[in-house]
Amino acid sequence: MVWDVLNVIGTIAFAISGAIIAMEEEYDILGVYILGFATAFGGGTVRNILIDLPLSHIWQQNILFYIAILVIGIVFFLPNSWIESYSKWAWGVFFDAIGLGAFAIQGALYAYNMNHPLIAVVVAAALTGAGGGVIRDLLARRQPLILKKEMYAVWAMMGGLIVGLGLANHDILLYFVLALIVACRMLAHHYGWQLPRKKRKGEESSA
Amino acid sequence: MVWDVLNVIGTIAFAISGAIIAMEEEYDILGVYILGFATAFGGGTVRNILIDLPLSHIWQQNILFYIAILVIGIVFFLPNSWIESYSKWAWGVFFDAIGLGAFAIQGALYAYNMNHPLIAVVVAAALTGAGGGVIRDLLARRQPLILKKEMYAVWAMMGGLIVGLGLANHDILLYFVLALIVACRMLAHHYGWQLPRKKRKGEESSA
Amino acid sequence: MVWDVLNVIGTIAFAISGAIIAMEEEYDILGVYILGFATAFGGGTVRNILIDLPLSHIWQQNILFYIAILVIGIVFFLPNSWIESYSKWAWGVFFDAIGLGAFAIQGALYAYNMNHPLIAVVVAAALTGAGGGVIRDLLARRQPLILKKEMYAVWAMMGGLIVGLGLANHDILLYFVLALIVACRMLAHHYGWQLPRKKRKGEESSA
Repeated sequence: MVWDVLNVIGTIAFAISGAIIAMEEEYDILGVYILGFATAFGGGTVRNILIDLPLSHIWQQNILFYIAILVIGIVFFLPNSWIESYSKWAWGVFFDAIGLGAFAIQGALYAYNMNHPLIAVVVAAALTGAGGGVIRDLLARRQPLILKKEMYAVWAMMGGLIVGLGLANHDILLYFVLALIVACRMLAHHYGWQLPRKKRKGEESSA
Repeated sequence: MVWDVLNVIGTIAFAISGAIIAMEEEYDILGVYILGFATAFGGGTVRNILIDLPLSHIWQQNILFYIAILVIGIVFFLPNSWIESYSKWAWGVFFDAIGLGAFAIQGALYAYNMNHPLIAVVVAAALTGAGGGVIRDLLARRQPLILKKEMYAVWAMMGGLIVGLGLANHDILLYFVLALIVACRMLAHHYGWQLPRKKRKGEESSA
Repeated sequence: MVWDVLNVIGTIAFAISGAIIAMEEEYDILGVYILGFATAFGGGTVRNILIDLPLSHIWQQNILFYIAILVIGIVFFLPNSWIESYSKWAWGVFFDAIGLGAFAIQGALYAYNMNHPLIAVVVAAALTGAGGGVIRDLLARRQPLILKKEMYAVWAMMGGLIVGLGLANHDILLYFVLALIVACRMLAHHYGWQLPRKKRKGEESSA
């Protein structure tokens, strides 16, 4: 039940993020819907493909589909100034972090319960949590932001690692993992944490 | 038999559209073939993946493959002026519309006969009809045009909706759906119909 | 055994090529890893999807994963000047050619042993050999280089054609095919061989 609520929050947050980027690219209302859906459901789709889960599961999420349809419609008709506020708003980051965490844990559990090796569990967590955003950015012809900013996928992978090592073998522990992912994501956003990247011009390599 | 002919027309129209865009991007002849094939067969491939159909079916379309190989070769060797004419030519839009309609109906029927929920039928129609064009645009590093122009995917979804609601339970009715899609697509192209999009600078939201 | 060594060489060469492009795009260290992995393992993943092979196979390549993790880490911490040298270095092209050839033959054999039609064998060879590079370029928002340069995918397809026609029905012959692919790739690089492409401005078509 709690996980259902978290899934709903995550779906809403991801659908909104896709819809906003589509509007920035001046896509029409269908494009806004496609990008919203791709962001909300794309990560889970790619995960199912990669760990040999049938995709029919995706098509049974009827309630989540209706919620996404409603939410994207609302976003489309809201005044632009509200949308700009949302993007800067701490609650927006918070909802997105819940989506990242809930999706990552759910993806990791799928792979873990299929006895996939550890690396598959970590990848499933990263794809489920952050894969929708990559698909969104590809469809909007943007550089995939999660490859550059605020260690986004790292927190999903951290969650996948904990699940994959069998350290979260109780429901209560999964909530701790979720809280950890959300906290890390919020702190990374607030303090602008970055993973090291390679300097290019003028300087020698610094990692 | 009639559907086979429609499929051939659609494959030819889609292969040509991929080949032309590849030549505009100055891809070499292999790139022209890859983009032509991706446009003609990419939509059906993605659809099969998403509705859990085996892909071996794709590899049995031998005649369509040979037709695509031939057509793309012809396009490559035609004078540029002929290609420019084709792009502006109403028959080109007409053939493309037949491809959109035939592929959309075929995709919708696949999903419908597998008892997938309505939304899966609509998505299968959209992917089969318009998905090849999205793959084409991604490989050519262009903004997916169908997200912005002339309601392209809408007509495929309309067809999917009619099929998914069980309203086209007779062959003769499927031809009506095809004619409807083709007519809508031609009218949308001719009159430049657009779905609403969000204004961004200066104005407040207008849907 | 020999093929295992060739696979390792190919994986290393492809992982390096993905990592270098990620660093050129100023991705952070996670982005460098993702692009390195996508290049090394993406081609085989897409091939498995397209010829209906389960993907669980991908997840059992534990040794290759550890090698890729190590190699990408080393590349990240190397001085920039070394990396620039690598890109220009003939051995770099040679290793990449081994990867292209070994992956193409492996992909072709998979499809051939599943009794797929000839065109599927050729496509499987091309995807396994060159697909990782396409995924790499898409994620880095670059024009897929293999669609334009030095007939890259052609050699993989040539290998697929030989395997698919049943001409390489002995291990020793497969080594000849590999040597042929590597030799063609090196010659094409050295002499700047190009497939024909279409002239656009001013001139009439010249194929």
